Amino acid sequence: MLSAKKRKTVININGKIIPPESANVSVFDRSFLYGDSLYEVVRTYHGKPFRLKEHLIRMEKSAALCHMKLGHTVAQYEKEILKTIAAYRAQPGKSNEDVYMRIVVSRGSGKIGFGLKNLESSADFVIIVEPISMFPTPAFVKGTKLQISKRIRNHPKAIDPAMKSGNYLNSLLAYLTAADEGYDDALMPDQQGFITEGTTFNVFYVKRGIVATPPLDVGILDGVTRRAIINLCVELGIPCREVRFPKEYLYEADEVFVSSSLKEVLPVLDLDGKKINKGNAGPVSATLKAAFADLVKRELNLK
Amino acid sequence: MLSAKKRKTVININGKIIPPESANVSVFDRSFLYGDSLYEVVRTYHGKPFRLKEHLIRMEKSAALCHMKLGHTVAQYEKEILKTIAAYRAQPGKSNEDVYMRIVVSRGSGKIGFGLKNLESSADFVIIVEPISMFPTPAFVKGTKLQISKRIRNHPKAIDPAMKSGNYLNSLLAYLTAADEGYDDALMPDQQGFITEGTTFNVFYVKRGIVATPPLDVGILDGVTRRAIINLCVELGIPCREVRFPKEYLYEADEVFVSSSLKEVLPVLDLDGKKINKGNAGPVSATLKAAFADLVKRELNLK
Repeated sequence: MLSAKKRKTVININGKIIPPESANVSVFDRSFLYGDSLYEVVRTYHGKPFRLKEHLIRMEKSAALCHMKLGHTVAQYEKEILKTIAAYRAQPGKSNEDVYMRIVVSRGSGKIGFGLKNLESSADFVIIVEPISMFPTPAFVKGTKLQISKRIRNHPKAIDPAMKSGNYLNSLLAYLTAADEGYDDALMPDQQGFITEGTTFNVFYVKRGIVATPPLDVGILDGVTRRAIINLCVELGIPCREVRFPKEYLYEADEVFVSSSLKEVLPVLDLDGKKINKGNAGPVSATLKAAFADLVKRELNLK
Repeated sequence: MLSAKKRKTVININGKIIPPESANVSVFDRSFLYGDSLYEVVRTYHGKPFRLKEHLIRMEKSAALCHMKLGHTVAQYEKEILKTIAAYRAQPGKSNEDVYMRIVVSRGSGKIGFGLKNLESSADFVIIVEPISMFPTPAFVKGTKLQISKRIRNHPKAIDPAMKSGNYLNSLLAYLTAADEGYDDALMPDQQGFITEGTTFNVFYVKRGIVATPPLDVGILDGVTRRAIINLCVELGIPCREVRFPKEYLYEADEVFVSSSLKEVLPVLDLDGKKINKGNAGPVSATLKAAFADLVKRELNLK
């Protein structure tokens, strides 16, 4: 991968640091054959990953949801991730760079066929560490323009969105349609028309000073940033409720914002072509964005 | 992959024959990252694949359903597949062996991120050719024992089951639960309780001489063998209907059977612990199984 080489991407496969151009998995790996894998993404701030342990504990929960035995403990994955981040930052000119980290855990590889008796190797892991600088775009700073997808989110009884798996076509196809139609990304409804989450992020709205976000049981990822925001609302005395709502509540909201480890708190300025808060980031979003930045600083002991 | 080497598996990646132990895809390939891939499976009879072109035309339809641009034409994929099968059979002692062939087509690889602008290489393909002998088990010959899964099939508006993609967790998890509970495999209902299909096969039942199978719009794969069976029913004057039905219709059926390129026509002898036709293959299943074998012979000009 030329660009990965250029970006000085560092990859760790099962404990070994591998150059990007030879970072491969077998065609007999179940991640390749079936998307039979889990993943997590974190970013660093001044070199320190935010809530890494929380992400890895969620990965364990994802594994339980798909009956996958992870090959290592949270502490072992954490150690390998920190090692990989350190390897990235040890490169010339990279010592001050913040990174994007993706860990992918496969159920393993072996003979073709669903049965676990076909497994010949146990769960493998791949850690990819890259510059985070690829992410901040104008949209990232100012706000974003979203579409409510016509594609419904996976039903929890089919593939539970609480499980962060390598089966990403549902969200990916919602994204591709949104991008094709001129939007930055998409929010997805469930079959009843209730809003669930974005393709890679959670969603909130603000109406008359009250913050609202879909409840976990609508079928969404239990976002680390989502949880942090709910707690920040409590700390700041901002009422925050977990409720089901249709897209019309978003159209008529005072503010809408989305959250993820990469997007942090990102205002939505345009939804299905309708301006939210006249196309400006609102005060509650701004307060929570600042509070989140402050939380990161406090928690990671940054200046 | 030790066992693949032992089985003399032959792999073709983007036109090159590669030894199994070095048959890899990049960790930047979207098949690995998102399950953003399509696949088809065929088997050979006396070295000739059955309805290969039909499978590849379906792959083109799957590609259209997920806005994927295939890198090659049906004729080009066909040529590569035949080349790979020939390479398998050219090995010592393999000239008379029938094979399992799996083709996987990825959207390509590049930078991490859903956007197509991240693609740095166009669609890759992987062709895996192995001995078919790994499949016939006692169940294959006599009949099979299935469970009706509690896991519902993906909704067509979420991930359309008509698209044969690398997002296989929905069916795979249904399989794992069934296997764990002592069944060979599982059938999956939709949200309303109507039967859709098996984890890797279509389903039929027979009642008072009439054959029935779920219609395509319940959200299933348009199976090549399913279509062949429907046509055989017409040829043989057996009434065959595409209708929605709940699991109770299967419990009370005179016969139940499943179909796929590998299973052909396979009687279901036990469903959720209830014997079908007192645990014996029924006459209509037997007739269709024989008619299918005959169709294969006729079509491939076999003796």
